[in-house]
Amino acid sequence: MKTRRRIYLDHAATTPVDPRVVEAMAPYWNEIYGNSASLHEFGRQAARALEEARAQVAAELNCHPTEIVFTSCGTESDNLALRGIAWAARKAGRGHHIITTAIEHHAVSHTAEQLRDLFGFEVTFLPVDRYGMVDPDDVRAALRKETILISVMYANNEVGTIQPIAEIGRIAREHQIPFHTDAVQAGGTLDLDVQALNVDLLALSAHKFYGPKGVGVLYVRRGIKLVPALTGGGHERGHRPGTVNVAGIVGLATALRLTRTNREEENARLRRLRDRLIEGLLERIPDIQLTGHPTQRLPHNASFAIRGVDGEALLLGLDLEGIAASTGSACTTGDPEPSFVLRAMGLPYEWGVGGLRFTFGHQNREEDVDAVLEVLPPLVERLREMSPIGAPGGS
Amino acid sequence: MKTRRRIYLDHAATTPVDPRVVEAMAPYWNEIYGNSASLHEFGRQAARALEEARAQVAAELNCHPTEIVFTSCGTESDNLALRGIAWAARKAGRGHHIITTAIEHHAVSHTAEQLRDLFGFEVTFLPVDRYGMVDPDDVRAALRKETILISVMYANNEVGTIQPIAEIGRIAREHQIPFHTDAVQAGGTLDLDVQALNVDLLALSAHKFYGPKGVGVLYVRRGIKLVPALTGGGHERGHRPGTVNVAGIVGLATALRLTRTNREEENARLRRLRDRLIEGLLERIPDIQLTGHPTQRLPHNASFAIRGVDGEALLLGLDLEGIAASTGSACTTGDPEPSFVLRAMGLPYEWGVGGLRFTFGHQNREEDVDAVLEVLPPLVERLREMSPIGAPGGS
Repeated sequence: MKTRRRIYLDHAATTPVDPRVVEAMAPYWNEIYGNSASLHEFGRQAARALEEARAQVAAELNCHPTEIVFTSCGTESDNLALRGIAWAARKAGRGHHIITTAIEHHAVSHTAEQLRDLFGFEVTFLPVDRYGMVDPDDVRAALRKETILISVMYANNEVGTIQPIAEIGRIAREHQIPFHTDAVQAGGTLDLDVQALNVDLLALSAHKFYGPKGVGVLYVRRGIKLVPALTGGGHERGHRPGTVNVAGIVGLATALRLTRTNREEENARLRRLRDRLIEGLLERIPDIQLTGHPTQRLPHNASFAIRGVDGEALLLGLDLEGIAASTGSACTTGDPEPSFVLRAMGLPYEWGVGGLRFTFGHQNREEDVDAVLEVLPPLVERLREMSPIGAPGGS
Repeated sequence: MKTRRRIYLDHAATTPVDPRVVEAMAPYWNEIYGNSASLHEFGRQAARALEEARAQVAAELNCHPTEIVFTSCGTESDNLALRGIAWAARKAGRGHHIITTAIEHHAVSHTAEQLRDLFGFEVTFLPVDRYGMVDPDDVRAALRKETILISVMYANNEVGTIQPIAEIGRIAREHQIPFHTDAVQAGGTLDLDVQALNVDLLALSAHKFYGPKGVGVLYVRRGIKLVPALTGGGHERGHRPGTVNVAGIVGLATALRLTRTNREEENARLRRLRDRLIEGLLERIPDIQLTGHPTQRLPHNASFAIRGVDGEALLLGLDLEGIAASTGSACTTGDPEPSFVLRAMGLPYEWGVGGLRFTFGHQNREEDVDAVLEVLPPLVERLREMSPIGAPGGS
């Protein structure tokens, strides 16, 4: 193992907290520590900070502060959207059909499956094309009079494909069906104007954009009725009970604002790093392909399928060289399985098992790309020689 | 308003984070920031911190680390316990009857009500005596062959009464029914040995014992089957999805350890402050009574009912003098309502509206008690003159 500095290229998994965010949270540990639901001055101080954070987030999303619900993470936000709509429909005796896609994060897909398996809802999982793209016409075709919710992710976490959210939103609106988008992967880089996106529900997670772990947002358009997925006190206008995590929420609001301040320049910089890596690897490695859409993709996402190797072995090999990446696979050592996303995109087995994702962030520089270009090609070669997948004798 | 330093006597609502806890969390913002589910070294570092915190918490609770599930708050822990058991029962085609009490926190009572109203479960709410105490014989009498869960809080948040948990646990065990306790209010001061308590599920929240807001624990005894209340990734052994809040969890574990290090001495100190306040107020104010059990009560809780005044008006009057307390009431200005806890304890209206709670913490000293003894009696007198409740002309 070389004594190279460690290189983090897994910003889709999580990001370091921006030092300015750490600083913004600092007063809320033991100076302004009141419970924001308390009536006294300690509580009112906390409530003011909370409402200021809410207003900041609302400004970034171009919505009203009362439409912002703070949660504990993106997963909880997605759960609240799906369960909240489903149970409101059940309560009102309305329909029981949900439309989503085959490539959602488990926070959406497993929730839809639980609603189906345990609570009698019906779920349509729309297919995607070879680039991981949903066809809005498929959404239209799947609509039934019992449809109560459409949920399509903004950008895919594995392959970075950006979905035609505004267009799907228009279809949803034509049919007056609530439209939810899991925007967790989009939070740091894409436009979050909920009016332009035509969404009714939108989920974000702070730790994906240099905020703290343990805090998320669900945008809920005025007029959308949710039955709370968690029950307890009347916090967050009855949408989310539990003592409010003021420090984390101030951190989320600060991080969102910072991320969006120089978004265009930073996105351009990330795209250059991304494209340098894509071009370099496609040149240097035989039988490699870019996964996800060639242009409609997250600016910081470079994901690949590499034929005949196990993505997890690649990941561990890179890790030994101090480079942190991610595999799209289910990560069961010794039993490589293509990820469900790559399967949904139709990749053959011997390609799909070699899923590998690099996601760039603020601290990355060109030298990080060069390190991958130096390390990965010989690693692939070595692994293909040792234990070729899809060839005789391979595991 | 006098220029007295502000006095915080609302530690049951929330506590300031111990500076040692802030310090323990510090490395996890942007040094050890990996996603604990990631396979690379950044992730493994985070996972090690997470598992160390889990082992610490397990040691304090006298259980196995795999029985500790980290959540986003006490409310979520209670939700996971109730929903998790209820849905596991539904899935297995078992019973649909839940036993709980009339004085639970809304995290339990509203969850039980939603399970009843929306999902067809049946709920028995056990009564309490005038001290807010549950009778174990009532638990036994409420048992049915369809009973799937007993949930009784460890100590009441308003009046501080400590329930006979170990005894109720024995009854539950005799009948092989899972037993959950909401220990959120007990976390800082009472014994948390889950073996001695005979509990199968126990909920805690870090911010009640000088840890950060936004992180909780659910102890789940091995063998207890839960269907997750939130669905997504496979974190926390499938019990709680979502990227793990490592900083917060390290904070929770540190806070729990610190709180329990000198628990006996600190409890004795808190009891002295509490009793000084109780004796002082009972002496100085006519028509005042202690609420909750006289001896089986949390060491830091002094709660009262004051006849003929609105608890919220008292709270605001104290706030003007820089003293933070809490009312047990529903806090609807101008329309005083006794809290459901005081109602369940059988307090008449003109007593119940005057609920007032003081809860002590690490930073409180005798002078804080003396400040309340100075300020509160004339405040009560003034309010009784201005707008007597329960008297002709009162609101």
